[in-house]
Amino acid sequence: MRKAEVPDRIASESELIERYLIPLARNAPGALGLADDCAVLAPPPASDLVLTTDAVAAGVHFFPDDAPEDIAWKALAVNVSDLAAKGATPIAYQMALSFPEAPAHRWLERFVGGLAEAQAAFGITLSGGDTDRRPGPLTIAITAIGGVPSGRMVRRGRASPGDALFVTGTLGDGALGLALRLDPSLAATWRLTPGEQEHLLSRYARPQPRLSLGPTLRELASAAMDLSDGLAKDLGRMMDASGCRATIDAAHLPLSAAARKALATDPALMTTVVTGGDDYEILAAAPAAQADAFEARAAACGSPVTRIGVCEGGTGVAIADEEGRPIALARGGWDHF
Amino acid sequence: MRKAEVPDRIASESELIERYLIPLARNAPGALGLADDCAVLAPPPASDLVLTTDAVAAGVHFFPDDAPEDIAWKALAVNVSDLAAKGATPIAYQMALSFPEAPAHRWLERFVGGLAEAQAAFGITLSGGDTDRRPGPLTIAITAIGGVPSGRMVRRGRASPGDALFVTGTLGDGALGLALRLDPSLAATWRLTPGEQEHLLSRYARPQPRLSLGPTLRELASAAMDLSDGLAKDLGRMMDASGCRATIDAAHLPLSAAARKALATDPALMTTVVTGGDDYEILAAAPAAQADAFEARAAACGSPVTRIGVCEGGTGVAIADEEGRPIALARGGWDHF
Repeated sequence: MRKAEVPDRIASESELIERYLIPLARNAPGALGLADDCAVLAPPPASDLVLTTDAVAAGVHFFPDDAPEDIAWKALAVNVSDLAAKGATPIAYQMALSFPEAPAHRWLERFVGGLAEAQAAFGITLSGGDTDRRPGPLTIAITAIGGVPSGRMVRRGRASPGDALFVTGTLGDGALGLALRLDPSLAATWRLTPGEQEHLLSRYARPQPRLSLGPTLRELASAAMDLSDGLAKDLGRMMDASGCRATIDAAHLPLSAAARKALATDPALMTTVVTGGDDYEILAAAPAAQADAFEARAAACGSPVTRIGVCEGGTGVAIADEEGRPIALARGGWDHF
Repeated sequence: MRKAEVPDRIASESELIERYLIPLARNAPGALGLADDCAVLAPPPASDLVLTTDAVAAGVHFFPDDAPEDIAWKALAVNVSDLAAKGATPIAYQMALSFPEAPAHRWLERFVGGLAEAQAAFGITLSGGDTDRRPGPLTIAITAIGGVPSGRMVRRGRASPGDALFVTGTLGDGALGLALRLDPSLAATWRLTPGEQEHLLSRYARPQPRLSLGPTLRELASAAMDLSDGLAKDLGRMMDASGCRATIDAAHLPLSAAARKALATDPALMTTVVTGGDDYEILAAAPAAQADAFEARAAACGSPVTRIGVCEGGTGVAIADEEGRPIALARGGWDHF
């Protein structure tokens, strides 16, 4: 007797939408249950909308065998991190999903579970999108929409000489987590406890957008952006856009216990910390007179920041080691081409 | 003596953005010259925003050797067509571009030229996005944003028994154009003049969103949606969403001269006309009392419509041929899986 075939893959686009995507849009009135051609969004009063788009693809931005929950979380988090850095409050997102083959139910359940978890954590809801089958890697292209009080989006290019430079959280964990993901033997080399390994891997897999910093950024920061391509490159972008020069003390860069251990065994990893990318922390500039208040408010609202250097006249970025010698950067940060 | 190498492909992401994409964002103040992490959009007063997302990929939605201008036009047009069907006025779009290899300058010049042409035709401007290199086909994922007076987005599911059903333009040209693109010998079979061939090919390559119908839809239509997956399937969706049944006279379907010639040689092509997809015309329902006014207003604003049938109690879609016999549909329309 033949066993009945259990269909483990979805059979159609409408099954994908009805069973997995519509529940994600349940709390967005303007998503219209994903049953119309477009979503409709009533903008919050006296607000500007803030828009950002980031696509992630298997084999490029994540590993095809990553946990589906983590793939989903990261695809949404990298977008929400941009909103957070602009002082915006998340509202809704549009998602274009491209699958190389009909996805399995079990994979989709976990993927949608990760999205639901991220939606709840970030206060954002699916409003619409597009699904397709086509050759090539699984791709998730998200456009996230947030709101800020009119005229108050925090810009990248408004830092001034004299401003203090800050970052949230700790740097380098994501890049070290990726290195560890690629070569698990580094855990022994770096003498990491299981908890420290888990910390680095999770910082790579589950970036935490610093949304609680929003009001502080809007009130006290002169400029801000999120760190996705490495401090050196992203700080260079902020300085270019602002017409300033940054001087950073490597000794002041905030590091997790795990990153400190890794650097103790291999000091050259400082290059990974400052150029490796995948931090998803916020880089901010604040006028000197407001720097202490910025630091205190950030800590009070649960997104502590560390002062890493100062903004001066000139161009470029200088990073000095503990003896004040400039650090030569082997790589310029992540380029998407 | 060796000839100097002429670099025919772009060298970096920043070259792609600075040389090709920033000029497309020049007229959008909130795009901030694509120099910030996010775009900012001040919503028009007393308006709702309308959001739609469509991704197109080489080998699935267009041919890799299609003219780059046409690829660009269609990627934007299929999104703007959704806005048009909702009565919305285009504002801005976010674009995620994924290239399998660094694109050639010549290809990009033509691609960006097609986007600029479409932007001017549709009154929309690039506000931001994302660019990447990754394996798999060239993919263009666009989220388009439009505006409607608050509460006035035209919905899909609001048709009622008694409503007259209308479509803009002519049906089937896109699907016949695709068939002709795949098998040029059909031009002789169908006895098409060069002008008629060009008409069908261009209707496939360059859909024209019916934006001028917007005010008429908002004032007089009970329901509307754009036709992308074939009349039979999309009308079925409108009837499902509205809880109605549609009865359509095939003899009333508006056809171009080229489509009429093709059908004269092969009447079975009627199935292609009603299920083939790629029309990008608007399907609308209007209450019987307003049907004449709808027709007159649509013609006056340059988007003439044809009354194709009527909405009744019940479910599903019935399409009757010239003798009143139901047409059996061989295929159910385009499914993305």
